[in-house]
Amino acid sequence: MAAAAVLTPLYLQIAEDIIERIRTGTLRPGEKAPSIRRLSEQKRVSVSTALQAYMWLESRGHLEARPRSGFFVRQAFASLIPEPRFETSGMQPHSLGTHDIIDTIRTSLRDPSCIPFAAGCASPELFPNRAINLILRRIVNRQPQHSAMYQFPPGIDALRRQIARRSPDSGCGVAAEGVVVTCGAIEAVSLSLRAVARPGDVIAVESPTYFGILGSAASLGMKIVEIPTHPQDGMDLERLESAIRKHRIKACITMSNCHNPLGYVLSDEYKKALADLTARHNVAVIEDDVYGDLAYESPRPRTVKSFDKKGLVMLCSSFSKTLPPGLRVGWVMPGRFQAEMERLVFLSTVATSTLSQMAVAEFLASGAYDRHVKRLNAAFASRVDIVRQAIARYFPEGTRVTRPAGGLLLWVELPRKTDALKLYQAALAERIAILPGRIFSTSNRFRNHIRLNCGQTWSEAHERALVRLGRLCEDARA
Amino acid sequence: MAAAAVLTPLYLQIAEDIIERIRTGTLRPGEKAPSIRRLSEQKRVSVSTALQAYMWLESRGHLEARPRSGFFVRQAFASLIPEPRFETSGMQPHSLGTHDIIDTIRTSLRDPSCIPFAAGCASPELFPNRAINLILRRIVNRQPQHSAMYQFPPGIDALRRQIARRSPDSGCGVAAEGVVVTCGAIEAVSLSLRAVARPGDVIAVESPTYFGILGSAASLGMKIVEIPTHPQDGMDLERLESAIRKHRIKACITMSNCHNPLGYVLSDEYKKALADLTARHNVAVIEDDVYGDLAYESPRPRTVKSFDKKGLVMLCSSFSKTLPPGLRVGWVMPGRFQAEMERLVFLSTVATSTLSQMAVAEFLASGAYDRHVKRLNAAFASRVDIVRQAIARYFPEGTRVTRPAGGLLLWVELPRKTDALKLYQAALAERIAILPGRIFSTSNRFRNHIRLNCGQTWSEAHERALVRLGRLCEDARA
Repeated sequence: MAAAAVLTPLYLQIAEDIIERIRTGTLRPGEKAPSIRRLSEQKRVSVSTALQAYMWLESRGHLEARPRSGFFVRQAFASLIPEPRFETSGMQPHSLGTHDIIDTIRTSLRDPSCIPFAAGCASPELFPNRAINLILRRIVNRQPQHSAMYQFPPGIDALRRQIARRSPDSGCGVAAEGVVVTCGAIEAVSLSLRAVARPGDVIAVESPTYFGILGSAASLGMKIVEIPTHPQDGMDLERLESAIRKHRIKACITMSNCHNPLGYVLSDEYKKALADLTARHNVAVIEDDVYGDLAYESPRPRTVKSFDKKGLVMLCSSFSKTLPPGLRVGWVMPGRFQAEMERLVFLSTVATSTLSQMAVAEFLASGAYDRHVKRLNAAFASRVDIVRQAIARYFPEGTRVTRPAGGLLLWVELPRKTDALKLYQAALAERIAILPGRIFSTSNRFRNHIRLNCGQTWSEAHERALVRLGRLCEDARA
Repeated sequence: MAAAAVLTPLYLQIAEDIIERIRTGTLRPGEKAPSIRRLSEQKRVSVSTALQAYMWLESRGHLEARPRSGFFVRQAFASLIPEPRFETSGMQPHSLGTHDIIDTIRTSLRDPSCIPFAAGCASPELFPNRAINLILRRIVNRQPQHSAMYQFPPGIDALRRQIARRSPDSGCGVAAEGVVVTCGAIEAVSLSLRAVARPGDVIAVESPTYFGILGSAASLGMKIVEIPTHPQDGMDLERLESAIRKHRIKACITMSNCHNPLGYVLSDEYKKALADLTARHNVAVIEDDVYGDLAYESPRPRTVKSFDKKGLVMLCSSFSKTLPPGLRVGWVMPGRFQAEMERLVFLSTVATSTLSQMAVAEFLASGAYDRHVKRLNAAFASRVDIVRQAIARYFPEGTRVTRPAGGLLLWVELPRKTDALKLYQAALAERIAILPGRIFSTSNRFRNHIRLNCGQTWSEAHERALVRLGRLCEDARA
């Protein structure tokens, strides 16, 4: 975290730490926060920096100043904002052109001059860059011919062993032979779709769901049925079953841990019910668990795959949310579709970078991964909280926002009349990148929603951007 | 080449050098080779090593010993072996399961205990590993956060500029904006197919052609028409035109430089005729130029793309044949399909490794690439020659073999009654990996053909393997 100190003002780091104490219950509403003097000693900062931290926390509604008594924890604004509504509608299969979805956002994702609330990723300094670089240097010195051979699917053994070794943490007991390395989770999901369905087939997805899933299915000529999805409780399983009956669904794509964009983590009962239901109908499940390691609670939540008895669940993930995403190391545990997935990787990319595979394998083997993820999750939890606070303060009345159980994303329901696409465009014109809700569905159901990435290190500029975004909401009436 | 010295016996290195002199015409048939003493001085080796080299060259038919006169260059055996026959047959669209094709060979590609005549790749020590590693260390030191951000399509600018800067060498004047980086050439080809055709559409390919192309088209549910392809003169353009007329072909996949497996380089006239013909019918061309830099002749041959006036040619390539293939850096110049290709990369893999992209960009910028490729081509040319010689000596009468104008592959037509799949299996049982001809076609047209990779450093083990392979041909009668 040394690098973070350079970028985040000291008072904000201290404030983040206090928020974390409040979040975890170490400091409770009504309790007195440490005195300014005590805080400055604890943190080895000047009294004025400690005061600055408290004043910022007061301005954000975390603390209240009581004359001559000091600062007290108050009921945060953010906990008063309601969560988004569950609205259902028809479940007709759609076939969607990919153009709209992707072109809408590609510009904003690529523009480095924007305040980055768009792409779902952490600030660069949150990654263990130093440790990864040490490993890279070691590989280069020890094995100068590291990349000189093709590494054919299923990927290098050392990495697959490490991934398999971690699989009991999510309730699976998959061996290295059951792992196929991919170029990111998106390759895993996209090839899983090709392994189990053909153009014209119908796929069930959550609604809202990650736009890459919608784009991928659409670009393969598959039809999409969106199953109404409760912002805390997940996809409606009864409706999923009726869709399976009605539309001969070939596969269901689901994110039960740290859903993108909803942020929920579903219960083991739900996961078992989903595994049983799909098994009963012989429907393949493509489980996108790319945010799974980012659940705030410990131990890490289980996967639907852990309840899979028939090999029908293809568990897809990557290290792009916890380690530098430019490494491009993803994987799939394809169950009974193992051979087909190996073939498809062979025909699509052959492999992802050997050096990346080796580096991730060594980082996992070093044992540093769990410690790193713990720190990362604390950072994400407090950043998500900061952004929720800002939304509570600066966004128009009637705004609703998710309370994620993990990850770095917030899903914001704006007042009904707000046109989020207009907001997206107005924000982009002011170099603020967000994602409009409509790309998370084939319908126009989420036209007044936006998704915000909270993985970035907080700064004045981020705060100003959210103030501005709140004002722009007013102008973005449909 | 320092590392090669460790692996190749000294006398073989010297022999390779003599073959290279013969190949380039420095030593001509009938001329006297340097005396043993002179050679030992030139090469700073013992007289007995020099003698060993000459005896080996004599045993392979390169030199003949004349009593008391020394060694003379003779007409090589290999130039006496005819090239494979051009056989045409019907052009019916096939739709092929990918299973057979890929599963047949995946085992042999992955097994490190085999003598590797299968995968099309060079010996590890032929790559500029030291220079690449220097660059990797530099990037890691200079930009510790090198991989910490997503790099969205079309790929990093520095690499695309370098690729664009080289494009005039193949007759194209494409700007960096016209380049999309991919995870190897196979991703470029596979996504190009998806950009221009849909499941059920018909694609024209050369026959034989690279099995990855057939597998890729098949896995996308496309139908394949094989255009009869002359072993030196390429695809029959009249037949291509009649197939276009008859089958409403959506795209034609072609390799006009260092064809895999045939090894030819086609003339500029041919390339222009192909570009004109496809343009006339508005058929997209997917040009796989992955071996293009490996043409033995200088300057580097042009591409079909260089004659493209309508933006219909998608030029696909990679650095996997000239730089370490585990880097996974490929690219496409998609012409009018630029936006669609960027979308498809975004939905398929997002990107290939950032570090790899940066490393290749710096290696290209250093100016070392051209020198390296020149050395590599000399090595490939002499290795291909050595394998041709061995085939001439050890394979049954009636064997025919290509005389490649570039690359590291030989296409061998065995006597008609040989079943190359049996041969493949018998060879694999003895830890010799080759590729059976049938995977290069959807038909059974090449059942008595094999493809041999000659990119490996020559050793006694390779020689013994080819002796054995020649004998196994006798047993592999259909």
